[in-house]
Amino acid sequence: MAAQRASASAGLRSPAQIPLRPAAETITRAGLSAGRIPLFDPRPHVPQGYPAKAFVGEAVPFDVVSFREGHDRIGVHLRLADPQGAETLHDMTPLEDGTDRWRATVALDAAGTWQYRFESFADDFATWAHAADVKAVAGVDVPVMCALGARLLAAAVKEKDRPAAELRTLRASATALRRAESAADAQALRAVAVDPALAAAFAARPIASVGSVTDWMPLRVERERAGVGAWYEFFPRSEGAVRRKDGSVKSGTFRSAAKRLPGVAGMGFDVIYLVPIHPIGTTNRKGRNNTLTAEPGDPGSPYAIGSAEGGHDAIHAELGTEKDLRAFVRAAAKEGLEVALDLALQASPDHPWVDTHPEWFTTLPDGSIAYAENPPKKYQDIYPLNFDNDPAGIYAEMLRVVLHWVGLGVKIFRVDNPHTKPLQFWEWLIGEVNAQHPEVIFLAEAFTRPAVMRALAAVGFQQSYSYFTWRNTKAELEEFLTSVSHETSDYMRPNLFVNTHDILTEYLQFGGRAAYRIRACIAATAAPVWGVYAGYELIENVARPGSEENIDNEKYEYKFRDWEGAEQNGESLAPLLRRLNEIRRAHPALGQLRNFAAHWSDDDAVLVYSKHLDAAFTTTGAADTIIVVANLDPHSVRETTVHLDTRIWGVEPGHSYQVEDLLTGAEWTWTDHNYVRLDAFAEPVHILKVKERP
Amino acid sequence: MAAQRASASAGLRSPAQIPLRPAAETITRAGLSAGRIPLFDPRPHVPQGYPAKAFVGEAVPFDVVSFREGHDRIGVHLRLADPQGAETLHDMTPLEDGTDRWRATVALDAAGTWQYRFESFADDFATWAHAADVKAVAGVDVPVMCALGARLLAAAVKEKDRPAAELRTLRASATALRRAESAADAQALRAVAVDPALAAAFAARPIASVGSVTDWMPLRVERERAGVGAWYEFFPRSEGAVRRKDGSVKSGTFRSAAKRLPGVAGMGFDVIYLVPIHPIGTTNRKGRNNTLTAEPGDPGSPYAIGSAEGGHDAIHAELGTEKDLRAFVRAAAKEGLEVALDLALQASPDHPWVDTHPEWFTTLPDGSIAYAENPPKKYQDIYPLNFDNDPAGIYAEMLRVVLHWVGLGVKIFRVDNPHTKPLQFWEWLIGEVNAQHPEVIFLAEAFTRPAVMRALAAVGFQQSYSYFTWRNTKAELEEFLTSVSHETSDYMRPNLFVNTHDILTEYLQFGGRAAYRIRACIAATAAPVWGVYAGYELIENVARPGSEENIDNEKYEYKFRDWEGAEQNGESLAPLLRRLNEIRRAHPALGQLRNFAAHWSDDDAVLVYSKHLDAAFTTTGAADTIIVVANLDPHSVRETTVHLDTRIWGVEPGHSYQVEDLLTGAEWTWTDHNYVRLDAFAEPVHILKVKERP
Repeated sequence: MAAQRASASAGLRSPAQIPLRPAAETITRAGLSAGRIPLFDPRPHVPQGYPAKAFVGEAVPFDVVSFREGHDRIGVHLRLADPQGAETLHDMTPLEDGTDRWRATVALDAAGTWQYRFESFADDFATWAHAADVKAVAGVDVPVMCALGARLLAAAVKEKDRPAAELRTLRASATALRRAESAADAQALRAVAVDPALAAAFAARPIASVGSVTDWMPLRVERERAGVGAWYEFFPRSEGAVRRKDGSVKSGTFRSAAKRLPGVAGMGFDVIYLVPIHPIGTTNRKGRNNTLTAEPGDPGSPYAIGSAEGGHDAIHAELGTEKDLRAFVRAAAKEGLEVALDLALQASPDHPWVDTHPEWFTTLPDGSIAYAENPPKKYQDIYPLNFDNDPAGIYAEMLRVVLHWVGLGVKIFRVDNPHTKPLQFWEWLIGEVNAQHPEVIFLAEAFTRPAVMRALAAVGFQQSYSYFTWRNTKAELEEFLTSVSHETSDYMRPNLFVNTHDILTEYLQFGGRAAYRIRACIAATAAPVWGVYAGYELIENVARPGSEENIDNEKYEYKFRDWEGAEQNGESLAPLLRRLNEIRRAHPALGQLRNFAAHWSDDDAVLVYSKHLDAAFTTTGAADTIIVVANLDPHSVRETTVHLDTRIWGVEPGHSYQVEDLLTGAEWTWTDHNYVRLDAFAEPVHILKVKERP
Repeated sequence: MAAQRASASAGLRSPAQIPLRPAAETITRAGLSAGRIPLFDPRPHVPQGYPAKAFVGEAVPFDVVSFREGHDRIGVHLRLADPQGAETLHDMTPLEDGTDRWRATVALDAAGTWQYRFESFADDFATWAHAADVKAVAGVDVPVMCALGARLLAAAVKEKDRPAAELRTLRASATALRRAESAADAQALRAVAVDPALAAAFAARPIASVGSVTDWMPLRVERERAGVGAWYEFFPRSEGAVRRKDGSVKSGTFRSAAKRLPGVAGMGFDVIYLVPIHPIGTTNRKGRNNTLTAEPGDPGSPYAIGSAEGGHDAIHAELGTEKDLRAFVRAAAKEGLEVALDLALQASPDHPWVDTHPEWFTTLPDGSIAYAENPPKKYQDIYPLNFDNDPAGIYAEMLRVVLHWVGLGVKIFRVDNPHTKPLQFWEWLIGEVNAQHPEVIFLAEAFTRPAVMRALAAVGFQQSYSYFTWRNTKAELEEFLTSVSHETSDYMRPNLFVNTHDILTEYLQFGGRAAYRIRACIAATAAPVWGVYAGYELIENVARPGSEENIDNEKYEYKFRDWEGAEQNGESLAPLLRRLNEIRRAHPALGQLRNFAAHWSDDDAVLVYSKHLDAAFTTTGAADTIIVVANLDPHSVRETTVHLDTRIWGVEPGHSYQVEDLLTGAEWTWTDHNYVRLDAFAEPVHILKVKERP
């Protein structure tokens, strides 16, 4: 991988100064696209020409296909311009897979819009050195090769800004070649051709007779939290809710919910996500378990937003005031937690918009406003917005709403069902918000077809919910994790929530405690963003019959949970979650998306993958490597052999190295083939750290 | 698949007239890319933005990803503009694979630059009809749905140019809805909602509240021969060459070679390709079997171009004159054959350019001109051109050379080793030639890495040699044929030569007569362009030891072959080649590249594929389907079961249909699972025609 090199040191005759195409007008023609040394298929790449994305600290592979006719050697550079316009030049190395693809991996260290381009050039010295070497060995053309080498050296000493040491090397080589030429001394020629110091001087400042350059391409680098983080979702009304003697409930508030923040922070989470905090409609309010009629005291779904008390810019009176929210945000920040709010753009029939802006809904011929529906089914507690009647008005209002919460200190939004609103609305809204507040992060909660989910990410969402919860077998997880880490990672960042208030998969329903442990271990290590909905640590795994969500769902009622009691009696998974987040913080390899690599096992229920980060990209200067081996069968003990491509962490096949299980502390000496035993009822997952070789 | 529809009939409210984005300035912003109904990932698509290619008569699938938020229905149109600018509109249908990809397949009927774009729109009628149908069944919202339908009908009758019959349907439906509304008659509502005549009226002229449109994209449609043809290569000097009593040889000439044309045409070939016809250098001329010293009388390699008699614009004196060439071209045309010449841009040391333009070569410090080399190996009969010393001069000369031969009636060039010249040179040269002579076809003879071969095709080559000769196992052929037919077919057309003067693979060397039959059957049917180098029909399968080319290679000597004798004694494969080309002409499905589909067999040596063309694209009005089943093992008899996706040719799984073997006349009743027996020594390949069902 290429180390970063200051542009000041780049005395290369830049391709911009090289005639890229035949100079005479007779042979240029509008539309000619291939450069003299072609540069094809640059990456990062996002479909439709949207800018690629990265996050601060991400090690990003920059790729391009380049080649030239015949056998002459070429070189390829990546030129990066940071948001301030400062340029750096990076050597690219060819992949060894016959694709003519070159790569440089660079960790980006500042948020903002970077630019990158690729520069190819004839590497005249490398071409000469190869020919001189083999001809010297064969004893042919020795004087001619000496003379050709001398020409290159003469050009090289004229390059500006060459350090004195390099000049000395060049001049000494020139003298050696002059002598070799007159003596036809093949051995002396070869000594110059294979001289590493001379090669280094030319690598630093290549002599390039011809070359090409791509256009500059934009790369949007967002703050680290856009790409790395552990999320915890809760319903603030449940935290501190009290059941009175008469059975009625006193709602939790921002103030009472804030008392839970140290517990959440103590488990190592970074983001506390609150379901909607707005007034809830009463018309057709849903009762417990999604029944059509609410009983007195039922709090209603927080997604039925809006009442006479206010709409999307208001706070539910039972939760508190704007002042309380500010205090909650401050309390969270004190614990190292950022607050994420829910942005659910729909209205209850009681929403103020219904009176003030009926044009933002669909009015039927009978004068009524259309309910949400999937005909013939109707959802009579919700009016969907119509973005086409008054787009200017509705767009402006949605921007106002978001900026209102941004003004109160909220910088992360979990967006409910964005695929039910126009794609171009999101492109516009996110663009407008980020133009004023580039630090604001939007997470797309879209569970729909791949093309739609990818489009939402491409047009601007910083994070996306994913199919993770429904990928439970080894084959499914390998395919899914490889895809999100490589195929779409230039623009889409999956947030691996293990559960949500809407999702309790069969795997969790029927897999017992082991299933909860296995899924948490994978989510926390396979991608740099993961999430948990409160109650996961209590293994709340009973579904409403026939559904894929919790029974007595928190959307329709208050939940009372005894976090501390469960932890004291050993039933809580909080210690595991705490340990997983500790491991994440200690291991920068887990803070990267694009470094996932699937390995192999002989057992169809044993998933193996690694996350590796080169030493060049860690603050310690040491490489960081994590190997995860997971028994996906929550009902059995599995013994098998795992097979690893150890070259990823610099160990040649057959050699040994030490690993330490970060969950148990056990240590083993491993090679590329290793026996494992994973007991679903004891330790279903190894999270192994590769230690320095003994 | 979409039938073509005249643009005159398109009264659709075009997306161009629909507000594609929110209208108010406050919510538009430079750089907003997603349309109201997004259109992503259009195809045909060529990497790097080069125009896509098709050939006259090719059935081209046009694809685009389109979707909208929520459940409302959309429609997508393809709009095509032919080279004269006449537009046609084509309905697209969604693929049923969850990709949100829509497709219309259209056969292009004129050469020139077409333009295409995609138009998406809210299909308001389809949305209403679906809701009205299910709500009528459920008995909810009947009057409201009637009123909503009436709105659509009122808009539809106002559309210009509606035929009277459609207007009558619309008005009758409006009347029915008015009655249904006042009577709240669910049954009457449903009758309108599911009325096919009404649906047809809206399909012809949709009512679209919102929509989007892509930019126009170019599609270069080339003449049929660019994409379809059977090539035959020969050395004209061998055809009619006579060995004198003293052992010396009198060269064949254009006149004597012309006598072979009826034989070649009789085998059904379309193109007769001649290796270079220019004067051959004498300096360091190669002898027989590529030896370094030629004996007196050795004719030399025609690729060592140029002597005192002339260079790339001259004709070897022993072949004849320009007049003779013209006569040869005419004689070929009379037989239905087009002449292809070899364009090998390199020079012998005796080439006139060496004196007149030494700057087009590389001069070494000792004043000598550099030979071709792969250090330390040298090729002392060849001076490679240097395209960088005087690009303007050399580019212009190469254009002059090509236009010289075009002027003599040659419209096809087989380009020798294009990957050893700059890519941008080919982009320029082909562009310049085609600008003046769009009918000229260039075939790239590049056997190198995939990225380079694909780039040559992308920048303009109409045809490409391929890896076909080295793809001999079932897995290799399935992968290769699927890739060239689908992955790269928007810009790259493989010419499946079974052999060349440079290529005699191990499969042919050691597979005997069966190998020759098997490879010819596959090459002739798997892709629409194939080729044969003279001698294939005589099973000339002896290689120079350790090499992959014929012993006593025709490049360095004259060959004497008794075509008629071999055919009379039954040893020639000419009857098979004749039959294969007959089958190709009779079956338009074989004249398509993109319709290759691999099927399955239980035997790893039995390859199965089909080529199908819908009735809409044949001149007979009947669909055309060919199924090929090939035993790839030239040494054994194979019995196995083949498994077919018969839905491709419109037969539901489990149903039967008749097939006829076009090689033997045998007929069978087939289903989706069929027993086959393929005897390498008798009939190793079935080429089956699917007959009309009984």
